[in-house]
Amino acid sequence: MGKDPYRVRLKEPLTKKVLNFISSLKDDLWIVEEDIIGTEVHNIMLYEQKILTKNEIKLILKVLEDLKEKFQKDQISLDEDFEDIHPFIEKCVIDEIGIEIGGKIHTGRSRNDQVSVDIRLKVREGLNLLSFLLFELFEEFIKLSKKTKDFFLPLYTHFQRGQLGVFAHYINNYSAHLLRTIERIEEIFHRINRNPLGACAIGGTSININRERTAELFGFEGIVYNSIDAISSRDYIYETLMGLSLLSVDLSRIAEDLLIWSSREFGFVEIDDQYCSVSSVMPQKKNPDTIELIRGKSSKVIANLFSASLLIKAIPTGYFRDFQELKINLRNSFEIIFSILPILTEIFKSIKINKSRMLNTVNNSYVLALDLAELLVQEKNIPFRQSHKIVASLVKDSKNPKDIFNKEKLQNYILEITEKKIDISEQFIKELSDLNTCLNKRISQGSPSKLEVEKNISLLKIQKNHLFNLYEKRIQRIQNAENLLKQKINELIS
Amino acid sequence: MGKDPYRVRLKEPLTKKVLNFISSLKDDLWIVEEDIIGTEVHNIMLYEQKILTKNEIKLILKVLEDLKEKFQKDQISLDEDFEDIHPFIEKCVIDEIGIEIGGKIHTGRSRNDQVSVDIRLKVREGLNLLSFLLFELFEEFIKLSKKTKDFFLPLYTHFQRGQLGVFAHYINNYSAHLLRTIERIEEIFHRINRNPLGACAIGGTSININRERTAELFGFEGIVYNSIDAISSRDYIYETLMGLSLLSVDLSRIAEDLLIWSSREFGFVEIDDQYCSVSSVMPQKKNPDTIELIRGKSSKVIANLFSASLLIKAIPTGYFRDFQELKINLRNSFEIIFSILPILTEIFKSIKINKSRMLNTVNNSYVLALDLAELLVQEKNIPFRQSHKIVASLVKDSKNPKDIFNKEKLQNYILEITEKKIDISEQFIKELSDLNTCLNKRISQGSPSKLEVEKNISLLKIQKNHLFNLYEKRIQRIQNAENLLKQKINELIS
Amino acid sequence: MGKDPYRVRLKEPLTKKVLNFISSLKDDLWIVEEDIIGTEVHNIMLYEQKILTKNEIKLILKVLEDLKEKFQKDQISLDEDFEDIHPFIEKCVIDEIGIEIGGKIHTGRSRNDQVSVDIRLKVREGLNLLSFLLFELFEEFIKLSKKTKDFFLPLYTHFQRGQLGVFAHYINNYSAHLLRTIERIEEIFHRINRNPLGACAIGGTSININRERTAELFGFEGIVYNSIDAISSRDYIYETLMGLSLLSVDLSRIAEDLLIWSSREFGFVEIDDQYCSVSSVMPQKKNPDTIELIRGKSSKVIANLFSASLLIKAIPTGYFRDFQELKINLRNSFEIIFSILPILTEIFKSIKINKSRMLNTVNNSYVLALDLAELLVQEKNIPFRQSHKIVASLVKDSKNPKDIFNKEKLQNYILEITEKKIDISEQFIKELSDLNTCLNKRISQGSPSKLEVEKNISLLKIQKNHLFNLYEKRIQRIQNAENLLKQKINELIS
Amino acid sequence: MGKDPYRVRLKEPLTKKVLNFISSLKDDLWIVEEDIIGTEVHNIMLYEQKILTKNEIKLILKVLEDLKEKFQKDQISLDEDFEDIHPFIEKCVIDEIGIEIGGKIHTGRSRNDQVSVDIRLKVREGLNLLSFLLFELFEEFIKLSKKTKDFFLPLYTHFQRGQLGVFAHYINNYSAHLLRTIERIEEIFHRINRNPLGACAIGGTSININRERTAELFGFEGIVYNSIDAISSRDYIYETLMGLSLLSVDLSRIAEDLLIWSSREFGFVEIDDQYCSVSSVMPQKKNPDTIELIRGKSSKVIANLFSASLLIKAIPTGYFRDFQELKINLRNSFEIIFSILPILTEIFKSIKINKSRMLNTVNNSYVLALDLAELLVQEKNIPFRQSHKIVASLVKDSKNPKDIFNKEKLQNYILEITEKKIDISEQFIKELSDLNTCLNKRISQGSPSKLEVEKNISLLKIQKNHLFNLYEKRIQRIQNAENLLKQKINELIS
Repeated sequence: MGKDPYRVRLKEPLTKKVLNFISSLKDDLWIVEEDIIGTEVHNIMLYEQKILTKNEIKLILKVLEDLKEKFQKDQISLDEDFEDIHPFIEKCVIDEIGIEIGGKIHTGRSRNDQVSVDIRLKVREGLNLLSFLLFELFEEFIKLSKKTKDFFLPLYTHFQRGQLGVFAHYINNYSAHLLRTIERIEEIFHRINRNPLGACAIGGTSININRERTAELFGFEGIVYNSIDAISSRDYIYETLMGLSLLSVDLSRIAEDLLIWSSREFGFVEIDDQYCSVSSVMPQKKNPDTIELIRGKSSKVIANLFSASLLIKAIPTGYFRDFQELKINLRNSFEIIFSILPILTEIFKSIKINKSRMLNTVNNSYVLALDLAELLVQEKNIPFRQSHKIVASLVKDSKNPKDIFNKEKLQNYILEITEKKIDISEQFIKELSDLNTCLNKRISQGSPSKLEVEKNISLLKIQKNHLFNLYEKRIQRIQNAENLLKQKINELIS
Repeated sequence: MGKDPYRVRLKEPLTKKVLNFISSLKDDLWIVEEDIIGTEVHNIMLYEQKILTKNEIKLILKVLEDLKEKFQKDQISLDEDFEDIHPFIEKCVIDEIGIEIGGKIHTGRSRNDQVSVDIRLKVREGLNLLSFLLFELFEEFIKLSKKTKDFFLPLYTHFQRGQLGVFAHYINNYSAHLLRTIERIEEIFHRINRNPLGACAIGGTSININRERTAELFGFEGIVYNSIDAISSRDYIYETLMGLSLLSVDLSRIAEDLLIWSSREFGFVEIDDQYCSVSSVMPQKKNPDTIELIRGKSSKVIANLFSASLLIKAIPTGYFRDFQELKINLRNSFEIIFSILPILTEIFKSIKINKSRMLNTVNNSYVLALDLAELLVQEKNIPFRQSHKIVASLVKDSKNPKDIFNKEKLQNYILEITEKKIDISEQFIKELSDLNTCLNKRISQGSPSKLEVEKNISLLKIQKNHLFNLYEKRIQRIQNAENLLKQKINELIS
Repeated sequence: MGKDPYRVRLKEPLTKKVLNFISSLKDDLWIVEEDIIGTEVHNIMLYEQKILTKNEIKLILKVLEDLKEKFQKDQISLDEDFEDIHPFIEKCVIDEIGIEIGGKIHTGRSRNDQVSVDIRLKVREGLNLLSFLLFELFEEFIKLSKKTKDFFLPLYTHFQRGQLGVFAHYINNYSAHLLRTIERIEEIFHRINRNPLGACAIGGTSININRERTAELFGFEGIVYNSIDAISSRDYIYETLMGLSLLSVDLSRIAEDLLIWSSREFGFVEIDDQYCSVSSVMPQKKNPDTIELIRGKSSKVIANLFSASLLIKAIPTGYFRDFQELKINLRNSFEIIFSILPILTEIFKSIKINKSRMLNTVNNSYVLALDLAELLVQEKNIPFRQSHKIVASLVKDSKNPKDIFNKEKLQNYILEITEKKIDISEQFIKELSDLNTCLNKRISQGSPSKLEVEKNISLLKIQKNHLFNLYEKRIQRIQNAENLLKQKINELIS
Repeated sequence: MGKDPYRVRLKEPLTKKVLNFISSLKDDLWIVEEDIIGTEVHNIMLYEQKILTKNEIKLILKVLEDLKEKFQKDQISLDEDFEDIHPFIEKCVIDEIGIEIGGKIHTGRSRNDQVSVDIRLKVREGLNLLSFLLFELFEEFIKLSKKTKDFFLPLYTHFQRGQLGVFAHYINNYSAHLLRTIERIEEIFHRINRNPLGACAIGGTSININRERTAELFGFEGIVYNSIDAISSRDYIYETLMGLSLLSVDLSRIAEDLLIWSSREFGFVEIDDQYCSVSSVMPQKKNPDTIELIRGKSSKVIANLFSASLLIKAIPTGYFRDFQELKINLRNSFEIIFSILPILTEIFKSIKINKSRMLNTVNNSYVLALDLAELLVQEKNIPFRQSHKIVASLVKDSKNPKDIFNKEKLQNYILEITEKKIDISEQFIKELSDLNTCLNKRISQGSPSKLEVEKNISLLKIQKNHLFNLYEKRIQRIQNAENLLKQKINELIS
């Protein structure tokens, strides 16, 4: 018989090749700390329920604390004869304190509920770090936004110049996305932060366990009641991957903007050298490789969701070993996002915004065409559809952008299209000659006018503060539970 | 020049072939009612802001109400020279009441914010219908659960018989999934139910519009502040598709259970004839085609999310025509889900649960092995790892399931493994002979014991009621806005 | 009992709602012609095998020919009580010629093998049309390439200007992609063009059918031997979708190029007005909507493959109703591709290539930096790594592109880096001053030099001719089979 | 300045954090051998083209051979200051033999074409190993098929028992899939086995290189002519991932069959203990975890294709750093497949096929219903649609499968349905009583009759031999090139 303490019923052990194939041992290092804590919590509860004696819990906790420390210090050499971390740790405990006591640690639970605890703790930790990094990026965006409130540029639709705007306005758009992402994380957090422990294999246990108590010690906000649900559902992974996929879509779009803007042809921004690479042959090249990799790596985060959908969708109710692979998707997605966010924050910290180049582009464009059409509506009472036609005709008839402010031509087209003779004064034209004046006429809420950009920033900050408070509460709850657990362990060990 | 009132600046119209390619006109019928309502709301606001006169708003609303009715009665023949519904409707209005007044309806908005209103209204409606259908399915599950609290069956993991359970317990698992889905919908609802109108093309407008007022008339819970965000973000579609994809995963897993259970080999359930098909050649066949199609169609709902991710991810900030395709994904996903849910509810209403067949399977299985091992822990103070080994050895050594309750063998393995001589009484064995007794020993929260199944049902109902109240509030808010709008229209029209 | 002639064994018919859900009747119109032809072929074989009499085959063929014509003329009203096209057509036949003869048409086959015939015929037709459209686009590319052999532009990597090239060179790259796609289609074609008929439900038939003969009449290149394989495999759909997905990736990349190039900032190409749209509010806008939709719609084609993978992967061996949904994916993907290709061909036919704008960009760039470095290697025997460093230092030290041809600076950096004093003559510098000279030094095979671009074009044409011959053989084989069948039908009917 | 010999033009080096993010150094170990070989081939050609002297090539090859050996022996410690393997190796060479000679190795090429060589070599190697493993699995299938030609079982459709078949027939279906996969690999192989080297950065080189010669030394079957195509296309990766994804779909379906068949309820097969795991708590469990992981891991292979589609689709023509991520997808997909195939081969080697259990299932089923209906067609000249109805009525009216062979009932239903009195003899019924007789009546090609199963096996072997010959030619060509290269190196080094 092999070393696996669970493997009694089968005659043959797993061969090396099969072990290599099915083993998650190395991947499990990602959750080993959570796994040990999970065992500690479970056993403290067993003691409190009088299933373990004072002496038993003491010995068990001691060896677990010791193991945890060794893992942290990387002093454990994994035994590759084990197919996952759970029997390996149980074996370590038994080797240390004997089967009489060590053989009790798995009483009233199974790997199925245990691993769900581990991953939920890991997701929880991941979501918290994620929120933190998003808040940091948000702060950078706000700073940049404040600095670029009067950096004129064209707002693009269809890659074509649309309306006059300011750079800060683009950034505020990014910030709004971030806050919605943070909000989604907040919601997911409360749904996944629940206790599956006590579901045992799939149908609960006759051991007198206390699920509420383990929930408390973990800082969970309740229990996953139904025992099948606790071990068979993977929506807590799936919806985490969903959240990360949507964030990736946003990050990829931001990267796309930066790539376009940093092309020589646009030239709106310049990415700092430290985020760029060169060519092995073309001496002149400065390539924004980091940005490209943000775009490239976000594909993987989305694909990880689809990997999970392919996997989970096909599985009937119950636990199946396929689930093991989800951990890899989850970890990979978190790691990619955790590598992207700080880099992106720094990129925005060091980015150069080429104000004059953008202004130049504005000046060579028709971005005030709509403003002109609206002025005709407001001051000359021309129906919008006609004023649109007037300006469109002007554009069609123009050689360069300034031509659309030609008084005579304008009057002619007004006459042609409205059949009314309307006088256009110098003053009328002049109102459009100053970009500031022009932009500040855009009085609709959320426009890029100075006032509205400032209001937008204030609003974003208020929303951020609200979400940050919620985030801090989450952190506090976990902190409290960790303190409670530490205290309990100390009390029982001493 | 073509008929499109917007197409002034370009020299050539779209050719028929190109029109066929880019036109969303037919697909837009899905949103035509929302589009007209959107125009009504926008114009009422323009009137209230003194941008339209009393007479103008009267004529505009009259023609729009008329158009809406005609669309509802299918009395409008679409003019295929238009590339989408927006210029078509504007043209209809202008044709009816002249350019002088009709030419004003698009003042201070663009297609970009307009279409976002339409789709948000449509998503809102879809989410509400979805919640309703999920509540209905939930109710059916609760009924079935109540009926099958004592229908024993094995709980499976890895397609292998695990622990003793009851059918109701499986169903309660489904209900828990449903409630989490409903909760997700609730959250998405509040995030998408916001007003993008007033963002105009991308950079707002100089027209003195009132975005708060249009939000009120739509029943929106606030505005999408930043104008770029309002027209460039599609996370409101993406996260709706995410929610539907996760639901599809759940539905597919339920279908998978039903397919397996209704095989002759399992025989746990029988799907009513009206959901089954036959073979064109094999005379004996009764095939659960409906269930297979639930599984098959849910693939599409997931793929629609992937389609959206491919599309949105690649697009820089700004509006792009690619977005048009998202409507098709969204609609298709909703339609599939709306076709599946009522059918699934009816399937569960008419399903036959084969109690005796399931019991038979239980009796031919080792599903009490863990109960036996836990009894050894509890009554004989054997460490669980040893009791697990004892029972595993018994199983290995057994010809049929009853063998593991052989007193002598049990004593022998206890001796062999624990090196202790422990007496096993007749009473001890007897405790496991009655399934009811056995199950009711499973005292852990959320287990399939009778008490816990009942508690689970109560809990599910409480959670459902909470969510149902939230749902009703959503409905109420929309109802109120619709009433307000109707009243306003009547007031202005008369 | 309902009208479905197959539905005998079940007590209850499908309800309307269920019929709506599971019915593929309307979708089956896509394959109705193939289905009738399939029945004709099958029955001619039955006659030849003496399973039908001369009179029977005559009556059967007459009614089938009649039905086919009516379907073509849209004179058939589908009876929505049927769940798919197969029983409906059988019923039509029986209604017309009675059960005694009509009841024989399904002898020795089942819906399972029948539908696989239908879809294989449809895929075959689709692949042929696809090849044709790709050849057409290829021809347009060749034309454009010939016209733009001396249209200088920078070749980009990382969105940054790399080496000097010509527009024709870009286009030749597209053509090479097309040819590989055509080659893949050729391969898929021969794999899918095989006869599944005769597999019957899943295990063949005791009727003395002749599968080789039906293969011949269909123009199939052999039979799908194993009967399970014939009805359970869907790789013929999956690999068709794979081929389409890869084509979509290519099309989307071409669209991306066009979008970037047609931005005002690049300005390399101008898309003809007839493929562009305007803004409902911004009077100046000309948006390349058609290109955006090519990009947008190609997402769907890829997602359809993913949909198929989700669906097929989950299904064990055997026929399942889920398969029905694949037809929708397949059709949708073909339709999208068939709508894109002719439009793209026309777009390239009418595109304006802005030679002077591209030249201007070249002149404002460092695209000759590598050429300079290579000249130092060749004429001054400086190791490439050093010459790269020399030119990179020049670039770093330069204000504008011309600076890198500064003789003195160049000599200084050579000295600094190689520690050698090397004389740079006027002639040396001059060699780089003419773009034509410079490009024609690029003697490596497949470079954008004039000679190589011409060789590339020749090579592409040779490869195309080879593939076109193979294509024509495919077409010929099918034509022959169709003629044979028509002749047989005429012979038997008269 | 950092250590990267390419990084001259930029002022600042990459920070550690950025290096961590963008570096592919560790991932590049996967291609390091190919990279060194690529450099050797390139430089031999440079020597032959008289761009290097005899002494230079000698020194260069010596240091490269040395490096290759050190990498093989894991004696190289990577310097994490390098962002990928290419500058690292160039630096190693320069450090060893000086800039004067070492600085020449990159003459006339760039990282862009170089990395494409590396990956094509890697894909080529992967495809060859893949073919080999598939041939091995094929052989195992053939063996199993030969052994199980008379192992009766029901052939299932819709999870319901359909027609009588034999186990060998299922296996032959698997083999047919394998051969199509091998054929696809063969086709992909020839498309990807082409030389991109010489494309340089994107636009070729003025250095007098010889692309045909490097192609010969690599064993490539030609060159990727157009230089943009050579560095910008990634269809060689995409279509490899496509091929692997389709194989994964097949593998997953096989796994699904095995999971179902090894459930206690079906019990058709038993997976050997060495591929199974146990439960940590349920003592009786034997779970086919290995099979589940084959299913689970194949999701990832499919998702890797979609990851690639997300990535490539979004990228315009040209090289972008995003491509770097594709290597990870490719490697991961190969590794998963390479881990699955040998395991699956062994699982089938050791699988127990439960003949009696399957026979028992056959005997308790209606799998002969179609055979009966066809007998009525053949011997009693009843139209199939009526005979189908007769047998369906019998089934509906039966309590157990034997009832459908009740002479009197059969006569009654014939009378009722055909309105003809037809005598059914004992002999008629008897013909169906022996499964062998019954199956051997299934004379259609590819049926599970003994004769046809044997023919199927012969046919599969013939096809396999054909494909194996092609495979051997591939291997031979590469072997020849490797020998040629080795010989050249030895010649030049000595």
